[in-house]
Amino acid sequence: MHSRVCLAGLVLFAFVACAPPDQPAAADPLPSWADRAPKQRILDFISQVTDGSRPGFVPPAQRIATFDNDGTLLVEKPDYMQFEFIFDEIERMAPNHPEWKSVQPFKAALERDFETIDKMGAQGGIRLLFTTHAGMTQSEFSQLAARFVATDKHSRYQRPYTDLVYQPMLELLDLLRANDFQVFIVSAGTVELMRTYTLEVYGIPRHHVIGTTFRQHYDAATLPARILRVPEILSYNNRSAKPENIQLRIGQHPILAVGNSDGDIEMLQFAESDTLPYLQLLVHHDDAEREYEYDEGIEDALQQAAAHNWTVVSLKQDFLRLFPFDN
Amino acid sequence: MHSRVCLAGLVLFAFVACAPPDQPAAADPLPSWADRAPKQRILDFISQVTDGSRPGFVPPAQRIATFDNDGTLLVEKPDYMQFEFIFDEIERMAPNHPEWKSVQPFKAALERDFETIDKMGAQGGIRLLFTTHAGMTQSEFSQLAARFVATDKHSRYQRPYTDLVYQPMLELLDLLRANDFQVFIVSAGTVELMRTYTLEVYGIPRHHVIGTTFRQHYDAATLPARILRVPEILSYNNRSAKPENIQLRIGQHPILAVGNSDGDIEMLQFAESDTLPYLQLLVHHDDAEREYEYDEGIEDALQQAAAHNWTVVSLKQDFLRLFPFDN
Repeated sequence: MHSRVCLAGLVLFAFVACAPPDQPAAADPLPSWADRAPKQRILDFISQVTDGSRPGFVPPAQRIATFDNDGTLLVEKPDYMQFEFIFDEIERMAPNHPEWKSVQPFKAALERDFETIDKMGAQGGIRLLFTTHAGMTQSEFSQLAARFVATDKHSRYQRPYTDLVYQPMLELLDLLRANDFQVFIVSAGTVELMRTYTLEVYGIPRHHVIGTTFRQHYDAATLPARILRVPEILSYNNRSAKPENIQLRIGQHPILAVGNSDGDIEMLQFAESDTLPYLQLLVHHDDAEREYEYDEGIEDALQQAAAHNWTVVSLKQDFLRLFPFDN
Repeated sequence: MHSRVCLAGLVLFAFVACAPPDQPAAADPLPSWADRAPKQRILDFISQVTDGSRPGFVPPAQRIATFDNDGTLLVEKPDYMQFEFIFDEIERMAPNHPEWKSVQPFKAALERDFETIDKMGAQGGIRLLFTTHAGMTQSEFSQLAARFVATDKHSRYQRPYTDLVYQPMLELLDLLRANDFQVFIVSAGTVELMRTYTLEVYGIPRHHVIGTTFRQHYDAATLPARILRVPEILSYNNRSAKPENIQLRIGQHPILAVGNSDGDIEMLQFAESDTLPYLQLLVHHDDAEREYEYDEGIEDALQQAAAHNWTVVSLKQDFLRLFPFDN
């Protein structure tokens, strides 16, 4: 049996807080949200699920939050960042494919002729998607995606798309993480394009990004092994695929789901539960002045919101400060 | 402009540490590992990747560790926990299916006649898998799996399978998490069966479990919506599917990969990198006395280990204390 030597140490920690006398000492965690119902519902919800003395307490392991990306965290007009990437890549590849000047869907992509692309339907879009997203190694694709993210500029704001994230949503992400939520992106966008920037821009790591996926092929002919991207969609992560992939990937339903379009209806529904508190937020783009105003592609979601008491977040009224670079 | 009121507070924290005088003050983080090469390699590796002043430093976002489950974290003989679940479920369901007494593969399952099941090949096994894993809601399956995990006993140890986890591996999981690793299970086992116990047993949350998956079907005919389990395998997470699913789910290769069979070869290979330090561990079951001794199904992996300098971990020599309940 050992005799024991005990060491005692002291750590002295000085804590200094300064606050204006006419404001509460605790800082507002959502300063870019207007003092309206959505902000209050968010704060009430977080307070409820984290307070161990209340019946609506949710253990950290079940504090799952899922966010759509385009239009929910990031500007999606006049077109998705994803489409910009496709057009940009087609342009970059075009010198090696002189025939594209007269062959569809490449001609339309080079001319950014959205009307013709729309008319060609899914087949045209999928051909552009495969040409730009598959047939290379994972590491090659990541380099192409990183180059695009670093150089592309949004046509209206003349800034990288990754600057055009909603400041109120960044604050919400921070607040959720501070309250032990696991925050995931669940988007119809292709997963590896998003992974290029989600950690830096949102603080969301690669393994918390769920998106549209391509079949992968493991190739160990030489080491280190490579992952090849095969031109075959494994899962188009939209509508019902969102809750299905949430179950596959996260293994439980979210208690907070945030979206902005009909593609998010099923994910928001999936938050509903008989046993746990839940909150469903639907972002409504109604601010033509600072951003865009559109209801197309959100009509059904707005009806669901009205029918099921989802919380509609108005860009115009709820977001005091829109982008991080705004004053 | 506000005048400011400043508040100052002091937090006093007393820290007391006791250590036997003949041991170093810093506790051994891997007390159940023998002082042999594998333990030293693990400690060196963790020290290297976490020391910002060394060239082998790896930022926390890239500290990914992937572990196989059966045979790596958990006893897998005389048969996989997964198979026990299947046989247990068939037995539970049998009273409603009197014909099973004479119809294969159910007859063989009820009699635990492994030889006959083996002879039937994949078709028999898949029929048993679908019968026990699909055709119900996700929530119903979780209840069945939880019942099994709580009640099943291992034939030799007469304890729940979830007691039969390797104490040295639990210590390694803790050490990795303390060093900001993201730890994942990547197993050929079905994902929702594992999720029933991984948080409680390993401290690994549901969204860090990658396994064999079934197609899901989202059903919102009534709310709350349900996920139905469809009798179709989406991904059999073994061999090359392991790195493929790691890329899909985690979005980057592991720097530490741990396995114990030929099914793990590709996952261990996938850790190899030109740019990051990496460690590959292969558990070798060579202890007939305390556990089991077998090379079947690991022959190729042992050859790969010899050829590529993987670290072979001997159950007999490296694991001082085998199970948490051992003294």
